[in-house]
Formats: sequence, C-alpha cells, structure tokens
Amino acid sequence: MVNKGKTIGIGLMGLGVIGSGVAKVLLEKKDILARQAGSPLVLKKILEKDLSKHGSLGIEPQLFTTRFADIVNHPEIDIVIELIGGERPAADYIREALIAGKPVVTANKEVMAKHGYELLTLAQQHQVALRFEASVGGGIPLIAPFQEDLVANDISAIYGIINGTANYILTQMEQRGLDFSVALRQAQDLGYAERDPTKDIEGLDAAYKIAILAALAFRTKVSLQDIYCEGISRLEARDFRYARELEYAIKLLAIAKASNQTIEVRVHPVFIPEDFLLAKVNGVYNAVQVEGDLVGKVIFYGQGAGPLPTSSAVIADVVAVAQGISYGISNFPKLTFDVGKTIKPMSEVETRYYFRMNVADRPGVLAQISKILGDHLISISSVIQKETDPIAQTAEIVIMTHPAKEQAVREALREMEFLPVVREINNFVRVEA
Amino acid sequence: MVNKGKTIGIGLMGLGVIGSGVAKVLLEKKDILARQAGSPLVLKKILEKDLSKHGSLGIEPQLFTTRFADIVNHPEIDIVIELIGGERPAADYIREALIAGKPVVTANKEVMAKHGYELLTLAQQHQVALRFEASVGGGIPLIAPFQEDLVANDISAIYGIINGTANYILTQMEQRGLDFSVALRQAQDLGYAERDPTKDIEGLDAAYKIAILAALAFRTKVSLQDIYCEGISRLEARDFRYARELEYAIKLLAIAKASNQTIEVRVHPVFIPEDFLLAKVNGVYNAVQVEGDLVGKVIFYGQGAGPLPTSSAVIADVVAVAQGISYGISNFPKLTFDVGKTIKPMSEVETRYYFRMNVADRPGVLAQISKILGDHLISISSVIQKETDPIAQTAEIVIMTHPAKEQAVREALREMEFLPVVREINNFVRVEA
Repeated sequence: MVNKGKTIGIGLMGLGVIGSGVAKVLLEKKDILARQAGSPLVLKKILEKDLSKHGSLGIEPQLFTTRFADIVNHPEIDIVIELIGGERPAADYIREALIAGKPVVTANKEVMAKHGYELLTLAQQHQVALRFEASVGGGIPLIAPFQEDLVANDISAIYGIINGTANYILTQMEQRGLDFSVALRQAQDLGYAERDPTKDIEGLDAAYKIAILAALAFRTKVSLQDIYCEGISRLEARDFRYARELEYAIKLLAIAKASNQTIEVRVHPVFIPEDFLLAKVNGVYNAVQVEGDLVGKVIFYGQGAGPLPTSSAVIADVVAVAQGISYGISNFPKLTFDVGKTIKPMSEVETRYYFRMNVADRPGVLAQISKILGDHLISISSVIQKETDPIAQTAEIVIMTHPAKEQAVREALREMEFLPVVREINNFVRVEA
Repeated sequence: MVNKGKTIGIGLMGLGVIGSGVAKVLLEKKDILARQAGSPLVLKKILEKDLSKHGSLGIEPQLFTTRFADIVNHPEIDIVIELIGGERPAADYIREALIAGKPVVTANKEVMAKHGYELLTLAQQHQVALRFEASVGGGIPLIAPFQEDLVANDISAIYGIINGTANYILTQMEQRGLDFSVALRQAQDLGYAERDPTKDIEGLDAAYKIAILAALAFRTKVSLQDIYCEGISRLEARDFRYARELEYAIKLLAIAKASNQTIEVRVHPVFIPEDFLLAKVNGVYNAVQVEGDLVGKVIFYGQGAGPLPTSSAVIADVVAVAQGISYGISNFPKLTFDVGKTIKPMSEVETRYYFRMNVADRPGVLAQISKILGDHLISISSVIQKETDPIAQTAEIVIMTHPAKEQAVREALREMEFLPVVREINNFVRVEA
C-alpha cells in the first residue's frame, strides 16, 4: 500500500473521553504529525452514536456516521482507530477492518486480552498492522518494549501496578489510614473510580492488561481463565498499619513469571518491601517492572490512563502505521509466538504469606496454629501479637511465613478456621520479596 | 536490499567487554534470534587487534581481521555493529559503512553526541539504518521512545541519572557518609569506576548522553560545547548531611528543558526533593524522567551499563534492522529535525540554589550576606546556621534560595567572597523542585 503522496485518511470509531482526546490531538497537532508521519493525517469519518458531540471539537457534522460500513468501505480511510471500548462490537469491527486490509490502532485491552492472538494472526495474514500500545499503561511505552526493545531477552518476570484506580485507593488507605469503603467513595467523588468500580477494584482490568503483556513477553497464548484474580476490597486500614510496621507496602500487583516451560499469571494484593521502587508508586500512577536475562531489571513508570496519555500512545501507533504507508514499507511488528506454554495453576504457586487473625487470648494458642502450619510444611518467619481485647479475651496476631505453596496455605487456613481458639481469620495477603 | 532467504551476515567491530557480550549473545541465542529476525544472524567477520580473544568465545580464528576493509567490503556482511568506542576511528568506520550501504548499529555515545546529526543525515541519504539504542542507558529503552513512542508529544523536560559510576559514588557518600575521594577509591576497587574516572565524575559522559537525548526530544542539533557541565568532585559528606536535613537527595542530573524557541542542556549535581522517584535511584542504576504535553511524566529505569544490558539494546537494534532485510522493508526511523533552536547560555538559566559557607561567628554577618543577595534580586527561602567553631570563631551557614538567574548568583558569590566576614564559600549546588 503506497501512498500517492497525498494524505492519509483516518477513520475514528468512538468519540468518548479517549476518542475526543485523540481527535483533538489529530486536529491541533496536524502540522508536526504530518512531518512525523510523512503525510498529513486527515480525519475522514467518525463512528459515533451521539451526533451532538461534534460541536465542542469543531468537527464538521458530515464527518459523523452511525454505520460501521461507512468506515470499513471508505476508499479514503487508510487507518482505522478503534476507541469504542468493550468487547462487542469493537472486536468485530477490528476483525472486519483487518480483513478489508485496513491497519487498525486500538486502545482496547478487553479485546486484545480476549481476542489478541486471533486478531494478530489475522493482521499477519492480511499483511496489515494491528497496534495496541494504548491498551496497557496509557502513554507509557509497554507494548513496543516487548515487541522491539527487549526482544533479545528471556523475560523471567513482570510485576505491574497497572490499575490506577486501585492504586489510588490503596495509596489513600495507606497514607490517610482510610478503610476501603471510604477510600473508594472518595475516589468515586473525584472521578478516579467509576460508579460501578468492579473491574478496577476486583482486578479484572489488571488481568486484561497482564494477559496482554505476558503473551508478548513469553511469546505464548494466555487465556483470561488461566489468570488468578483477586481484588483489593478485603483489605482494611489495619493491614496497612501492620504492613508499615513490618516495612512493607501493599499494592495490587499483576504478576507474570516464567520458569522453563511453565508460566504463572496472577493479579492480587501483595506485600512488597517498602524500599522497592514499586512501593513508591503512588496515586493514579502505573509502573511495570520487567526482568530479563540480559537487561536485568527495568521499570517503566507514568500515568496509566486519561485522554491525553492514552492519546500519546494511540497517535504514536498511528504515526508508525502512517510512516509505513507514506514510505511504502510495511513496518508492522512480526509475530513470533511459540506453541503454548503450560500455565501453572494457582494452587501450585509458591509465595510468602501474611496472615492476620483474631484468636483467644490464652496460653497455647500459638502452639496449635504453628502445628497446623508445620503439618502443611509452612514455616513461620515472624509472629507479632497485636492488640488484645481484655473484655472479649481475644488477641490479634500477625504471621509472616516463608515461601509455601498456595494449596498448602489454603488447606492450613481451612483447618485453622476450625480451631476453637481461632475466632476469625481476618485476612491473608501474599508477599513478594 | 532483500535477503535471498538465506542468512544475515554480521560484521562486528570491537571485541572488548561489550563486543564479547554481544558476540556471546549472538552465538548462544542464535535460534530464538533467527525467529525474531526472520533469518539466521551469522557472524562473518570480527575487527579486533587482539587476535588472542577468539579463544574464550570459541570463535574460529579465521573470522578475525585487523583491517576495516575486510568488514566494509565483505559481500556477505549485511549489518555492521560498531563497539570499538571512542571517537576515532569509530566515527570514520561508521561513515564509510553507511556510504557503502551497510546498516550500522552502534553503542557509541561519543560518536553519536559529536557526529550524530551528520551520520543520521548520511544514513537517510543512503537509505540505510543507523541505530544507537545502546548509546544511552544500556538496555533501558531511551532512543526508541523519543523516535517512536513519544512522537506525538511536545517534550518540555528530561531529567536523567545517566552515569552509573557517579550515581554509585553519590549513593555511597549519602548512605555511608563517605567523602568524595574515599567513595571514588572504593568504586575503583570494585570496578565501578575506571582508573582515570574523569569522564564519569566530571559529567562528560552524561553530557554525551543528554546531547543525544535532547537532540531527539527537541528535534534539533545540540552541540557538546553548548552543554554546561560540572562534576561531583566538589561535593563533601557534609553537603549530604545538610541535604538530608532539608529533605533533599543529591544526584548528578543531566537536564534538558525546552521553552518556546530556546532550550537549555546542562549536567551538574542537583538537590532534588527526597520524595521524588529520581531521588530513590541508587547505586549503578540509571533513570530518565521525560515530561511531555500529552504523556505527562514518564520514567525509564534500569541498569545503564554492563555487557549484558548493553547487548540487550545492541541485539534489539540488530534484530530490527534484520527484520527489515528479511522482509524486504526499510524500517529505519525517519529523521525530522527542525532547524536549530537557540541554546540558552548557562548564565541565563534560572534555578534555586543551595550555598554552604564559613563565616565569622558574630552579629550582623547574615545582614551583609542578605544585602548582597538582595542587590542581585536573589531571595532567600531558608537559612540554617550550622556548627560553630568557638576557637576559630566561625560558623557554617547553609542558605537555600528561591529561583534566581545563574549570572546573578555568580556575581553575588563573587561579591560575598570579598566580604571580610566570609571566610570561605564552601559549595553551591543547584536545586530542582
């Protein structure tokens, strides 16, 4: 596809918060983008139900359409940008655009997590680009590093703070001693959390993103069903107090690790040592730590969401595709996926653990707990007896373990729950160190 | 240049520490690299004076040559890797390889800082790639982000900790209270500093690197002579004590800022607030903070040197060029340089300052100092009187200023030196906040 030295037509699907940001940048920066891209980038059509949206952006009303056919069949549209979000109809539109030979740029993490392998294969077959830098980490370069900069590495681990909403809530809980529900409500009032915050606080959004990163890093297919996913709603203010006392921070981490032929991919709250750089990533910021055999440890940090940072990534992808068209080259990243690696079930994963429990305040309690842990080969690294309640005659104890298998821990917890001296197991959180 | 479906020949110039690392990776990872690159990468010739070096790597002796002509004229060499280091003859070899139509991958910061503009223009003319990701920050992606991922941004500032040796020494001074000379000697003993450490500790190495980054970020030519460069050797253990008391860290920063048509580029020690992420970058690690109008603040962090991290970047560049050859495409980044922007002279730069001085311990001293500062429109943000010496009848005072022009500060310091009550101006360090 060689451009005739004229302009490169853009079809934009979705004019929500992100789409409006991208449209604004395309219009306001058209001169510099034309130089970068080798040809002017011109908005040809916008697929959007709400036709009233053109006003604020000063876009001519005749550019708007409500029919996908007006995008995919438009002879002057050279690049399709998908910013509708959600799985349907976005996935279908991307598929049809690729089949029609139109390169696609998307910010859609759900589509890429669920259909990325199929769509990238399709793009390869049709020799067109499918770029998705904006699907993870807003404007932070995270896709390109795996596809290009780090290709010489065997990646052993990824640790990502990749949900800004959850990280904002955790930061508020940590810094201001708030309980989860209060921190969530404040985040909602400030617009950092949606009215239905489930995807963010229960880890699903992070699971989409780590599915994408792990697939690229380990060059294998990763299914969402294989990702263990646990959110932050069980955390309480006292967990943060104890974490601080033990010199840890609590973060919602998306973790992907590879060893030989198995990989593990999981999202859950984690205690991380407070002197780790990731422990200092606060508020809505994101950060992803990658470990490779050559590069060692690298960290990418920045704003993981918002219309401007996301536009930064979307437009960079558009410019890359446009350069290919302008100069008559096909510079789309080549896929090299291995056949699937085995995903380790969560029960086989080994980490350290933090337990917080309410027990009877009397002698011999710890002996009973330690015995159960010992029976499951879980060894204790430290125990702290916290506040006692003289009226209820209970005490709170906090236990940190050495590395143990998840399954053993689950079984031990179940047995401990049946101990008459254990009033309640309040929380358990995995620990990375 | 379309590959005939066979192999891609590599000519490697320089088999020092980095060159040996790259050769090792090319040999040990040949299968995975062949898949990434689309064709096997085969070492065809190695330019190296010391022929005894083949032994340890198991490279056939007949691959070695001492003549550049054997590289540049070799019909089967498709990509030239330059890892000789230093300005000459490396710059000439790169130039001749490009003219001969051979793509070049280099890790040479000195050549790219001094001749980058000329060589990139030449590469463009000859339609071949010149890639240099390894020239800044080892394996941390720093060149590609400016050339690709952040192209939609107007970059306003870059703050880089880009010399691992200097950062290691500063970290030791801070954490262990060492004086500069002791920290330097220990760094030399550990191999973190060279026997002649001048380029690292006086900031020249960092100046090379920020010249490269600033040129890419601001799309303009940056000459080394325009970069103000000051090293870390004037810092003393007490500066770190006072910095900590004031809640600052001291780092050797390479700074590049743009405003309208002027840019400033400088390398010098800086007080940065201790809660900034850059303040937590310790030891030999590097980090670069970039600020763009869309992306906001992004940080790239990792090991800035060493044979393996550097190989990660070199091989990624080689794979990118090789993909172009394998698939018959020319995927080299396109240059879009503006005509030169004006470089602001250091005397015009405005920052805050920290002064430490030894003064007579008697009333009215501060009044005399403040008067001089006030005369030069420098306003004081805080003054701390530190240790007094009852025998010498002197006191040490530390002054933090509000933003002021470098020239005014220089003049004020000169006047203060003539005050009879000022025994010595021990240090002054710029402050970024």
